[in-house]
Amino acid sequence: MSTRIRPSRRRDEQQNRALTAVQPLLNTLPLVTVLSEEGVQAIHRASMRLLSDVGMLIVDYPPALEIFRQHGAKIEGERVWIDEDTLMHFVRQAPSTFTVQARNPANNLPIGGNHCVFAPIYGPPFVSDYQRGRRVSTMADFHNFAKLSQMSQDIHLAGGVLCEPNDLDNNERHLDMLLGLITLSDKAFMGSVTHINNARDSITMGEIVFGKQSIRQNPGMIMTVNASSPLRYDDRMFSVVHAYAEAGQPCLFTPFIIAGAMSPSTMAATVAQLNAEALFGICFAQMVNPGCPAVYGSFLANIDMKSGAPCFGTPENNLAMFAGGQMARYYKLPYRSGGNFTASRIPDAQAGYESATTMWATMQAGTNFVLHAAGWLEGGLIASYEKFVLDLEICAMAARYVKGISLTDEDFAWDAYEEAGPGKHFLGTAHTMRHYTTAFHQHKAFSMDNYEKWEEEGSVDSYKKAYGIWQKMLRDYEAPPLDEATRDELHAFAAHRRAEIQAGKPRSGWESSKQ
Amino acid sequence: MSTRIRPSRRRDEQQNRALTAVQPLLNTLPLVTVLSEEGVQAIHRASMRLLSDVGMLIVDYPPALEIFRQHGAKIEGERVWIDEDTLMHFVRQAPSTFTVQARNPANNLPIGGNHCVFAPIYGPPFVSDYQRGRRVSTMADFHNFAKLSQMSQDIHLAGGVLCEPNDLDNNERHLDMLLGLITLSDKAFMGSVTHINNARDSITMGEIVFGKQSIRQNPGMIMTVNASSPLRYDDRMFSVVHAYAEAGQPCLFTPFIIAGAMSPSTMAATVAQLNAEALFGICFAQMVNPGCPAVYGSFLANIDMKSGAPCFGTPENNLAMFAGGQMARYYKLPYRSGGNFTASRIPDAQAGYESATTMWATMQAGTNFVLHAAGWLEGGLIASYEKFVLDLEICAMAARYVKGISLTDEDFAWDAYEEAGPGKHFLGTAHTMRHYTTAFHQHKAFSMDNYEKWEEEGSVDSYKKAYGIWQKMLRDYEAPPLDEATRDELHAFAAHRRAEIQAGKPRSGWESSKQ
Repeated sequence: MSTRIRPSRRRDEQQNRALTAVQPLLNTLPLVTVLSEEGVQAIHRASMRLLSDVGMLIVDYPPALEIFRQHGAKIEGERVWIDEDTLMHFVRQAPSTFTVQARNPANNLPIGGNHCVFAPIYGPPFVSDYQRGRRVSTMADFHNFAKLSQMSQDIHLAGGVLCEPNDLDNNERHLDMLLGLITLSDKAFMGSVTHINNARDSITMGEIVFGKQSIRQNPGMIMTVNASSPLRYDDRMFSVVHAYAEAGQPCLFTPFIIAGAMSPSTMAATVAQLNAEALFGICFAQMVNPGCPAVYGSFLANIDMKSGAPCFGTPENNLAMFAGGQMARYYKLPYRSGGNFTASRIPDAQAGYESATTMWATMQAGTNFVLHAAGWLEGGLIASYEKFVLDLEICAMAARYVKGISLTDEDFAWDAYEEAGPGKHFLGTAHTMRHYTTAFHQHKAFSMDNYEKWEEEGSVDSYKKAYGIWQKMLRDYEAPPLDEATRDELHAFAAHRRAEIQAGKPRSGWESSKQ
Repeated sequence: MSTRIRPSRRRDEQQNRALTAVQPLLNTLPLVTVLSEEGVQAIHRASMRLLSDVGMLIVDYPPALEIFRQHGAKIEGERVWIDEDTLMHFVRQAPSTFTVQARNPANNLPIGGNHCVFAPIYGPPFVSDYQRGRRVSTMADFHNFAKLSQMSQDIHLAGGVLCEPNDLDNNERHLDMLLGLITLSDKAFMGSVTHINNARDSITMGEIVFGKQSIRQNPGMIMTVNASSPLRYDDRMFSVVHAYAEAGQPCLFTPFIIAGAMSPSTMAATVAQLNAEALFGICFAQMVNPGCPAVYGSFLANIDMKSGAPCFGTPENNLAMFAGGQMARYYKLPYRSGGNFTASRIPDAQAGYESATTMWATMQAGTNFVLHAAGWLEGGLIASYEKFVLDLEICAMAARYVKGISLTDEDFAWDAYEEAGPGKHFLGTAHTMRHYTTAFHQHKAFSMDNYEKWEEEGSVDSYKKAYGIWQKMLRDYEAPPLDEATRDELHAFAAHRRAEIQAGKPRSGWESSKQ
């Protein structure tokens, strides 16, 4: 699958490409499985039974009920029952791989197969940093995280709701976020899912950037939508899916389950329910627009049965993530899951343990799209500047990990053994000289210093060290080039929509100058 | 494989058993592989070439050279070349599973197969805690860690050199450590490897506890020995192996490699060298005593190519750990690897990320014996009280993880869906009531509190929280019962040996009262 889908137009973009081209991971290592083949079948059968016998709710969005009715599902009120044959007929229409365009074509993203892309944290109402602690996030924070994502070699998307810009009007802020993502970054962006009109605005801005026809061929954005589990989608989610699917833009269909509350407290039921909800969403998109790209998502936490608090980085969560990957592959769908999850409120040891616990499982589950790969704290309520930087270390390690062990003659280093022999170190051998610059993962946020050196340099823990790193990244940030015509049209469109929103007028169309 | 190998003798031991019986993990999940079958063969062939063409050094221990010579190896000076047929003939004598006795028979340890046992940190010269920071370790610290290991449900051995008792005489401290392990804990202990006489003292103390014949049938201790890589064993290591193998006691043969220095900087060569060194050690034990239990070990860090510092929790280390597990299974040998490794100097976020990175790979590699499962900081130089407690959380999670996903009808929770239905939570369902006490991993050291509650309670990070936990564990500690006769004989033997050591006399024998 090629990720280069058309030539770039400008010399400065050509130059910039070399600096920023993302390198999505290619994971050809064997994946972790926790279900036998019979187990996969058992989960599939249970999901089909949930969908055909228990049914799903679609709340406050009659158009979706009507679409399901027209395509053979049974409807009573807002409840939908669908049989296996009908459901799977539509699920099978979804492609197993597709490419999302980025403003810099070198940053186009392959989704599916053995590819794995990392996106930053999505959706938190708070930010925190080492100096200022936790606070309500603003548009200034959003811009900062957009710059950090752009600056991060191991983050492959600009992201979506990097944090809520709470200082801006709720009805317009999606425009500010889209402008921020598109102008501050040349990586792929995520569209808005907060209202059907916001979805349409996202599509229009994608058309302005890439061209109307172009994004029908290769999507110009990607979105994340959640079921409101158990077994339920609401009007907000299904109306935006409706709009995006009509325009051929892909959604990540992710049941967001806190097991024990939004699913039963047993893992088999939880995984079967996740599976049913993801497939139901994908089925809807295919009914709207057969062949529309879509991603099978799984997001699972569980409640602490004593306090009711959501738990992250747990063994149950990992088991469900592995099982979800197996189900996605069973249906030949791209898989979204995982991230650097933690319940902790600051980047302390707990945050590190929990994040690495989830993130390695994310890789080993064969995940194709990793939302929340950097910045996540407190169950996703906080975008942390330092956590962002620390998580990048694991993202970079993952990029090395998936390359596995090379077994060429050169890798067996026969000349080094002749040169050094038993009992002698290899530091000065010709073989080491040939390999030392690329031999091992090079740490950025973590320190390998011994105690004495570390103490001399101020006994800085990794939280404080990360503070200095993101500050430097922001200082070093340079905006990627953007042609004036596109920039002007984006701003003109945003101004047009702001005027409509402020006047309480209905949304009018916008024909982008690129077709 | 039964872990109960003989009836206990005393009523108080019977009662105690229920409280402390360890539960080694049974890992029946599919394991992670990073080498193809051809890859495993390629590593095997490269190792055989290293052993037959490059050779190994045995430094300052002529008896081992003589044993290799007698069994068909080629010797020149201190260098040994051995061909594949000869080597593998002896390697194949080692059993694939065995049982190590514990003072409380309920704590006997199965080694090999799908079993996995967790041992505490081994060998650090320093300890640290939240209040007092890093300091040189003492016998009081050793006693504390012995108590913590005994109190930890997820630590299955008392351990070995929990930390160096630097306040005690170097020639006698092994006696103090053995007395500490055996009297403060009723879990299996590790013997001394600091001198052949210390090995003999360990064996004698095992004979006093279990009986001389008994430990020949089922080992009364287990030891860890390292190659002094590359391709070298020294007199200290091979002399103690010699003593232990003659007595039928098992060693973990663990090349301790900092890749890039003690092996080439490529992973294929490093894994082949690890493999060669582990097999060579096992071969020696089998030449001494065919059928003697032995464990295939792998310990890998790599150097930071800029500073020369050892790195832990890296992708290269994990790849080597997975490959090592594949090689051990290829030879049908129990596998030792991993632990909660970090290069960090305090239990900060870095320590958490690195430790979880290594520990989950440890589980997924099919490791049977996990040394350093709790307490490790700064590349093993520090035994940290708080890190011990934090690592236990991951050990407990691993115990849940290896149980996988159960797929019974009850697990699919059909009655819960009838009771709750789409859109309604499951908290009050009869199914949840039946499962909530055992549903999910229950956190001890990690906190799931939200930001507000966490702030109210003092904004305690996990480092500080762990401080309170180990202090309570020490307060709650109760010594397991030990019959007076055994206790008296252990002390009498220690006094006898101290007198010999202090007088500079040669070691005399000791016939234990148990046969």
